[in-house]
Amino acid sequence: MKIAFIGTGNMGAPMARNLLLAGHAVAVYNRTREKAEALAAEGARVASSPQEAARDAEVTISMLANDAAVERATSGLPSETIHMGMSTISVELARRLAAGKYISAPVLGRPDAAAARKLWIMAAGPAALLEHCRPLMEALGRGISVIGDEPWKANMVKLGANFTLASMLETLGESFALMRKAGVPIEKFLEIINSLFQSPVYANYGKIIAEEKYEPAGFAMRLGLKDVNLALAAAGAEGVAMPAASLLHDHYLAAVALGRGDRDWSALAQFLAENAGLRTVRGA
Amino acid sequence: MKIAFIGTGNMGAPMARNLLLAGHAVAVYNRTREKAEALAAEGARVASSPQEAARDAEVTISMLANDAAVERATSGLPSETIHMGMSTISVELARRLAAGKYISAPVLGRPDAAAARKLWIMAAGPAALLEHCRPLMEALGRGISVIGDEPWKANMVKLGANFTLASMLETLGESFALMRKAGVPIEKFLEIINSLFQSPVYANYGKIIAEEKYEPAGFAMRLGLKDVNLALAAAGAEGVAMPAASLLHDHYLAAVALGRGDRDWSALAQFLAENAGLRTVRGA
Amino acid sequence: MKIAFIGTGNMGAPMARNLLLAGHAVAVYNRTREKAEALAAEGARVASSPQEAARDAEVTISMLANDAAVERATSGLPSETIHMGMSTISVELARRLAAGKYISAPVLGRPDAAAARKLWIMAAGPAALLEHCRPLMEALGRGISVIGDEPWKANMVKLGANFTLASMLETLGESFALMRKAGVPIEKFLEIINSLFQSPVYANYGKIIAEEKYEPAGFAMRLGLKDVNLALAAAGAEGVAMPAASLLHDHYLAAVALGRGDRDWSALAQFLAENAGLRTVRGA
Amino acid sequence: MKIAFIGTGNMGAPMARNLLLAGHAVAVYNRTREKAEALAAEGARVASSPQEAARDAEVTISMLANDAAVERATSGLPSETIHMGMSTISVELARRLAAGKYISAPVLGRPDAAAARKLWIMAAGPAALLEHCRPLMEALGRGISVIGDEPWKANMVKLGANFTLASMLETLGESFALMRKAGVPIEKFLEIINSLFQSPVYANYGKIIAEEKYEPAGFAMRLGLKDVNLALAAAGAEGVAMPAASLLHDHYLAAVALGRGDRDWSALAQFLAENAGLRTVRGA
Repeated sequence: MKIAFIGTGNMGAPMARNLLLAGHAVAVYNRTREKAEALAAEGARVASSPQEAARDAEVTISMLANDAAVERATSGLPSETIHMGMSTISVELARRLAAGKYISAPVLGRPDAAAARKLWIMAAGPAALLEHCRPLMEALGRGISVIGDEPWKANMVKLGANFTLASMLETLGESFALMRKAGVPIEKFLEIINSLFQSPVYANYGKIIAEEKYEPAGFAMRLGLKDVNLALAAAGAEGVAMPAASLLHDHYLAAVALGRGDRDWSALAQFLAENAGLRTVRGA
Repeated sequence: MKIAFIGTGNMGAPMARNLLLAGHAVAVYNRTREKAEALAAEGARVASSPQEAARDAEVTISMLANDAAVERATSGLPSETIHMGMSTISVELARRLAAGKYISAPVLGRPDAAAARKLWIMAAGPAALLEHCRPLMEALGRGISVIGDEPWKANMVKLGANFTLASMLETLGESFALMRKAGVPIEKFLEIINSLFQSPVYANYGKIIAEEKYEPAGFAMRLGLKDVNLALAAAGAEGVAMPAASLLHDHYLAAVALGRGDRDWSALAQFLAENAGLRTVRGA
Repeated sequence: MKIAFIGTGNMGAPMARNLLLAGHAVAVYNRTREKAEALAAEGARVASSPQEAARDAEVTISMLANDAAVERATSGLPSETIHMGMSTISVELARRLAAGKYISAPVLGRPDAAAARKLWIMAAGPAALLEHCRPLMEALGRGISVIGDEPWKANMVKLGANFTLASMLETLGESFALMRKAGVPIEKFLEIINSLFQSPVYANYGKIIAEEKYEPAGFAMRLGLKDVNLALAAAGAEGVAMPAASLLHDHYLAAVALGRGDRDWSALAQFLAENAGLRTVRGA
Repeated sequence: MKIAFIGTGNMGAPMARNLLLAGHAVAVYNRTREKAEALAAEGARVASSPQEAARDAEVTISMLANDAAVERATSGLPSETIHMGMSTISVELARRLAAGKYISAPVLGRPDAAAARKLWIMAAGPAALLEHCRPLMEALGRGISVIGDEPWKANMVKLGANFTLASMLETLGESFALMRKAGVPIEKFLEIINSLFQSPVYANYGKIIAEEKYEPAGFAMRLGLKDVNLALAAAGAEGVAMPAASLLHDHYLAAVALGRGDRDWSALAQFLAENAGLRTVRGA
């Protein structure tokens, strides 16, 4: 298939690579052109604008940082191309994009999962478009959940999922701060958490927090703040109070204001530890 | 071994049974005597007071509802018996009990896990006492984590673990309320949560919340409130702010005030759904 | 002076009347035309559009419900007219309006204060424009605080002031719920609050909450929610966490979701009383 | 009247002095004896124990730091003496003290108000005892509110009043942080707050926060934390969720953990400013 891939950053680059490996013809565009050019050696055509990339593409995939970037990049796309939005964007933008040939297909997984074709994809949109794009999704992930025929519902699910992750980080951060200040061996507490949840996500983040390895960021605090804000905006529009999300908003906002916006979003635990008067490894 | 088992309720009865099955001589006591007598057919000696149960016991196990019950039942125990406290009690009481021959060994698991010998035990206390009691713990659970030589640290870990569970319930409750109000199919969202966490605990509680089956309670709201309060008390004594725990306190307190104290503690999700203006299956 | 007055609702109508009484020539516009026509008997010219009202006005005053209404009404104003924005709008919109001849002059006070010329006005914008509009402000209020030369700062102050009021309502609501549930005579508690704060605002709202007279609304819940959201948006843009504002967001959102959006915003106290399991006068 | 006065600290000393000035015979006791001896020159008899002070006293007044101090000092009082408890203690202790000849009479006001006889007294207990003690209260304050015949209700009201003050501090702290970070002149915002509330309490604390004069403390953070905790305990016992009080608990706990327990409780504003990334005058 002829594909345009807009946004070849940490997530987008390995995804575009997997499409190339699956035999698709991929034109890539990235605002910082070097990041796109790195894919030329693997067979990508490097375009100088999103519109040029999408010129004769059956499907245009966007994988960008936020609403503004998606709006900027996808205005003026040819009307024939199917836009498959994989970025984490607002429910409100997804509703507007649905005026065109559009499906939402946001993903769960960090860059290493993108490289290993282990993303999980939440897809929603008109059935015919979803079917058309299915081979692409299969080239990118380990599983697809079809949420329904309204694209924005996939984005709502994605925001809900990210909220559950952020909330887990808050929870681990608070309980680890308590254990550390009380002098309980952290590795013992982590052993119990792992025995209790038996979840690779808890194991992974529990280890990061126990070892205080918040840099380099797998997913940065400022993106965590952005996603919590998108969840709160969606919840506000639906009339649903989410007090734990409000708490996350307050904490991420403060941590970013304190200059930690580029650390991993699990550094929420560091913010909480410092509020307990603990000296942290890479402290304030 | 000669064992006294104080408190043969939902959790204690199957635990005492497992000790009998492992060949120990068990004297049982329960305030509501009938619950103890149910174990006589399986070989237990039914005692008329905790002290009488513990008369010639090497180890006295307490498995009771709260601090007051443990204090009442274990004052006046013979000084030779080792007290193995398995209830979820305050850190502060555990500190005081350590004046005697005492180990803390609280457990993770609901009554079905107790029956199936699948509890996970967090044990702490003097090494010699722990070793002495190890065969008993092995007869009760699928694993033992030794937290250290100060009994209260096991209680701290237990309170921390229960906090992480309660916080997960809040998180699921808020996100399910959002999905339901937005018209996102709940089973789709649950599918994503399960794909993301790959945790039996999320799967189990996610199902309960999706189906709104809050009765009969596996673990009642009012006990959830009690445990969150114990965590907050422990955190307050250590000087650790736990805002998510405060949030749980507020919500459990309100839900109990609204008359739902006997529902499963996952009915937090129901409280949150109602606050979103949703009509719930077994609503207000 | 020749004045255009856009928005003659609960607040705008008495304000326009005071300008007429002060001898100004006032053209009025309101989307629901009848509300504007009520002012014709007092000498106002009734216009059929904001632009027609502003045709030859030295100053155009807007007093509307929200950002969208202000944007709609004031796009296409003649470039000569000074726009004096008195609505409670976002900081972000105020920044954009400053591209034209614009001052912000939001007010403190409810409709009765507007009628009695007892509003307090927070004004900001270029000094020359402020001076030009000063006679109008003097005809409308009991005092003027000049915040500076950037219009949006007056809006920031207004949002901060409304936040302090909403927070007072939460505080009174929680403490009144405690007193009522504990059986402490409410009038005694109110006596203490009045003795402590010696503030007409506490006295006024304390009385409303003690008597549970939430209808008709002086200022509706849904407007309270709107203003708290504007404060949170402004704080988020500045990188300032406001946990009490987040709490207010959660509570107002829930109360509106529960169908109380049209009650007075002090009915927050009712929401809190119900969460305590209290039966309220005009309950759920 | 023959009076025993237990606890001659910052508050107690000027109160005892006012009783001497009113012509009463006052025996004083303080754990740090020097503080009691300072009153000898003004006619007080210095006792070496609370019991000795109360030996032949009609009324024994306690004005101490917390529950433990009151329990310690007032156990073993002669049964004839009326105990007038003026400290801020728990509702639960007040309930227990009511087993004896006891009235609660906690006060509103800081040490300067105590010196100037400007305290406001909340009194509750059996009517005959209240009447007996009325002349003493009149010698100490500018007004008395009789709450009822159950002593603990006066303590409940006192805890509720302190909560409203602490909540005001949080509110001012958050809004001042926003204004400072946004570059809005603080004195302008304070002018609006004063115009809005017209309350000496807002004016006083607003000035402290605007000038960041948190030392010396009029009322220390650690006492603020204590009082918020007493309010939460009382509310928990009644089944009343107080989310704003939970927020205060979290913030005071963190501020004390960060080493600011001895600053004025209005330094909550400093904690909030720092969380906004602001550099404060006497910062971290």
